Amino acid sequence: MHKFEVWAPRAQKVSVQVEGVFHPMQRAAEKNRLGWWEATVEDAGPGSDYGFSLDDGDVLPDPRSPAQPYGVNGLSRLVNHDEFKWTDGHWQARPLSSAIIYELHIGTFSPEGTFAGAMQKLDHLVSLGVTHLELMPVNEFAGDWGWGYDGVDLFAPQHSYGTPDDLKRLVDACHKKNLAVLLDVVYNHLGPAGNYLNDFGPYFTDAYHTPWGSAVNLDDKGSYEARRFFADNALMWLRDYHFDGLRLDAVHAFEDHSAEHFLEQLASEVEALEAQLGRHFVLIAESDLNDPRVIKSRDAGGFGIDAQWSDDLHHALHSVLTGEQEGYYEDFGTLEQLATALQDAYVYKGDYSEHRQRRHGRRPAVEISGHRFLAYSQNHDQVGNRATGERLAHLVDTGRQKIAAAIVLTSPFIPMLFQGEEFSASSPFQYFTNHNKELGANISEGRRKEFAAFGWKPEDVPDPQDSETFCRSKLNWNEVSQGAHAEMLAWYKRLIELRKRTGALTDGHLDEVEANYSDESSWLVMKRRRVEVVCNLGEPCQEIPVQTSAREVICSAENWKLDKESMQLPADAVAILVE
Amino acid sequence: MHKFEVWAPRAQKVSVQVEGVFHPMQRAAEKNRLGWWEATVEDAGPGSDYGFSLDDGDVLPDPRSPAQPYGVNGLSRLVNHDEFKWTDGHWQARPLSSAIIYELHIGTFSPEGTFAGAMQKLDHLVSLGVTHLELMPVNEFAGDWGWGYDGVDLFAPQHSYGTPDDLKRLVDACHKKNLAVLLDVVYNHLGPAGNYLNDFGPYFTDAYHTPWGSAVNLDDKGSYEARRFFADNALMWLRDYHFDGLRLDAVHAFEDHSAEHFLEQLASEVEALEAQLGRHFVLIAESDLNDPRVIKSRDAGGFGIDAQWSDDLHHALHSVLTGEQEGYYEDFGTLEQLATALQDAYVYKGDYSEHRQRRHGRRPAVEISGHRFLAYSQNHDQVGNRATGERLAHLVDTGRQKIAAAIVLTSPFIPMLFQGEEFSASSPFQYFTNHNKELGANISEGRRKEFAAFGWKPEDVPDPQDSETFCRSKLNWNEVSQGAHAEMLAWYKRLIELRKRTGALTDGHLDEVEANYSDESSWLVMKRRRVEVVCNLGEPCQEIPVQTSAREVICSAENWKLDKESMQLPADAVAILVE
Repeated sequence: MHKFEVWAPRAQKVSVQVEGVFHPMQRAAEKNRLGWWEATVEDAGPGSDYGFSLDDGDVLPDPRSPAQPYGVNGLSRLVNHDEFKWTDGHWQARPLSSAIIYELHIGTFSPEGTFAGAMQKLDHLVSLGVTHLELMPVNEFAGDWGWGYDGVDLFAPQHSYGTPDDLKRLVDACHKKNLAVLLDVVYNHLGPAGNYLNDFGPYFTDAYHTPWGSAVNLDDKGSYEARRFFADNALMWLRDYHFDGLRLDAVHAFEDHSAEHFLEQLASEVEALEAQLGRHFVLIAESDLNDPRVIKSRDAGGFGIDAQWSDDLHHALHSVLTGEQEGYYEDFGTLEQLATALQDAYVYKGDYSEHRQRRHGRRPAVEISGHRFLAYSQNHDQVGNRATGERLAHLVDTGRQKIAAAIVLTSPFIPMLFQGEEFSASSPFQYFTNHNKELGANISEGRRKEFAAFGWKPEDVPDPQDSETFCRSKLNWNEVSQGAHAEMLAWYKRLIELRKRTGALTDGHLDEVEANYSDESSWLVMKRRRVEVVCNLGEPCQEIPVQTSAREVICSAENWKLDKESMQLPADAVAILVE
Repeated sequence: MHKFEVWAPRAQKVSVQVEGVFHPMQRAAEKNRLGWWEATVEDAGPGSDYGFSLDDGDVLPDPRSPAQPYGVNGLSRLVNHDEFKWTDGHWQARPLSSAIIYELHIGTFSPEGTFAGAMQKLDHLVSLGVTHLELMPVNEFAGDWGWGYDGVDLFAPQHSYGTPDDLKRLVDACHKKNLAVLLDVVYNHLGPAGNYLNDFGPYFTDAYHTPWGSAVNLDDKGSYEARRFFADNALMWLRDYHFDGLRLDAVHAFEDHSAEHFLEQLASEVEALEAQLGRHFVLIAESDLNDPRVIKSRDAGGFGIDAQWSDDLHHALHSVLTGEQEGYYEDFGTLEQLATALQDAYVYKGDYSEHRQRRHGRRPAVEISGHRFLAYSQNHDQVGNRATGERLAHLVDTGRQKIAAAIVLTSPFIPMLFQGEEFSASSPFQYFTNHNKELGANISEGRRKEFAAFGWKPEDVPDPQDSETFCRSKLNWNEVSQGAHAEMLAWYKRLIELRKRTGALTDGHLDEVEANYSDESSWLVMKRRRVEVVCNLGEPCQEIPVQTSAREVICSAENWKLDKESMQLPADAVAILVE
């Protein structure tokens, strides 16, 4: 027996089809359930396939479908979340402030490209020393592979990654190995294929337009239930799949003029769930706003999101290391900006941005702890949104890769790595999709056009629809133990081990960054209490002033010399001095 | 081999006596270690007894002594905190918002009155359903028994409770049983006996006076090291003894005009330790200020303390239940105040207080979550500071006790119980001390005088120095399974079980409290989403209006009647309606 429920406020008649049989649904009686329909069906239970028909129309998947075994256009399947046998007993995630995050994409992380495949690689992550995994979106999207940001069934794990139980087994296995797991969720748009939400109700509004079309309805008519849809989804992943937190994709694309912003509502509801379940949860936002309101606590008038991604730091670091000045990198490129990013996270704090042709960001009224920001030198976007998906390892030499790793892992922020970065993986992370022929052709064409604007020849841009583009992006695990790959892995392990045992690196504060740039020199020194991080990005044999009387020196190069008040480093080398 | 260190900025000569042999100490060389003395002694290690002599004076215990096996006036003993074999691996405390706290006093909780004795009673606490223990102060105080608030060796566990390892074993055992452990620490004063801090340095200042004499030096000359002394103590309990948080005694007695208040410094340092160790910690303040600044987050200009005790709620509840109007209860006594306390935690929010003869408190600018307050109907102070240490069970009948429990455990705040409350323990909790004869006589005399002012005859006030006063205060564990005691225990278990499975009770919010008081009626209804708590404090058979269409009714009495829009309850009964 199962009670089916669906919100379809515009329909005059709704029925649920269960295993081929139609059952009429009734309007819910409760005053606060306006627009909801319900039907209790005797012959339905976990495993039953079903769908809804509105006004005698086609059978559509449930907007809240817990599983889509036949893909986005197929029937939904009932799941009883209470049946899974969890073994993570009294599991609690450690504080986010102590985290080292590892972003991974289920489809390309393991050879199998599945939840079960990822389980086989956990020991690598444990020995690397990371504490939190962040899974790129795993909810159902069109096709058998893709990045996941074009998902449509928000409550269903992607069928090609495995079953709901497979995902639970992965989270459970992570917890057993003392790894917390965060999930990337996309609430700012839905994918272009398999999205039937509009048939059911006003989940979208034409009041605003986004890069992806109509905006998600957060403040227009019917927004109460649309907001519940997204908020309930967040709570579901935390409660039923035991995720330890969520990464909220592109929150700058939320259009919400409600008195209580959707992010604040979400933070408040997640806090309530935390109290109810007695488990620690975190919310992390991808925000392009440089607006401290997102991460300020709710009693300071903020939205109460625990932390945000720090793209400014990425851009400052990337442009300094690569010399790139295209696209948004035109706003970056100086060592001073890198110093500012390390000091303040935001480089643009109300300053004029050439790229945006407007002022951008805001200076926080009070100092914000580094614990509120994630630092990374690479992520799925910064790698994958390049025409050919090059990692930093494809763009700069080993010395500069090691500098990038050292800056991220000694920064006052929460470090995050992107899968494979730790062993300089040779595989790119390219943009891949598996849409139907017509939509796929549009996407391939769009991708070529996008990069033609940057002077790319069409034949040099990998076709997203080509399955080879997907396969090429899979990690090659044989590399882990090989030559330069193994050497990089050892460097990452050493930095992670250092960070974990050094309170000065995790306290969220930074004392000072000195950046020196001239025709003759280019170096940067970051001071964090008993630790100095010294980077030489210029010519060798520069005398870089240091203050620390170091008991321990960790250096990416071999030929360094430390005097009482200065240090000599080879070019493209970094040294960490620990008092 | 051990390096001894001590701060003695006024001394001209310092030596350390180790196992009877004196070793001269040298001034520390580092600029930032002004006033510190050090000596490395070959024949010293864990277990060595030692003390410091200043300017050839008597050998004194170490201000930071890790153990005082011979009491407050004896030698100190070296402890190596790294030697203990912890078994709590990846332990993390659950969120405070989900906590049910149990305050206990090591000396009277178990028959043995020791850390080891308390370990024998953990299963009772697990079956009761509490999640956090809060130990009354366990640091070394004068004598073999006492409440602990007159401690003097802040870094040493009380010798009569057990060794440092015994305390660690207790915390470890709690963690194994999924119980978090908080420790009560007293930084606003030191006890009157065995306090040698003044000999060493300016730990106190005469710039301010407190009920206990000179104030702790938080902003006067030398305050940098005095603040470090207290802050380091806090960090030590969290790091070396694996406590999950601290309860800060009487923070309203801190005198600190520094730009960074000591509480803010403490919150900031504990956050840094949390990031370093990767463990969740909490700070809870006992504050009589009704000042939201204490519990506001640091980015909102607050001190960033996680939660505070809510004495206003206690006083409002106690005075309504008992009718008492003496002392500070004169400011309370109405059902409306109880409603206000449940709604806002602070009853006095800038209002005039008769008892204080001034305005008291401040209205928070934004709503503060209930998760920032602890609720209790009893605690060591409210019971023990009465002339004869009566519990609520000695003052009101079973019906009103059950109302008190229900209000606390369905409140929007974090519930806290005081040891034995859950089974209506017959033992009082009286004021007991074990000082030397002279000081003891003063204390006995002082206690008699204090209560003479309230009309108590000297012979009716238990003598704090009488060992019988201590023994009388021990819990009688035979009661747990007996008659009315067992009945009360069942009531508490039922309420705790209800709270844990009901999200509406733990979300920190309260919708509405209606209090109705007239000659004919006295009732209160608290509404929390899908839950209504209905208390009848007046005559039976009143029609109390309710809104909830209850699926479940939990009632302290048997003869209740629920109609569509009202409820009839016997006198002194409470019902919880769950939708």
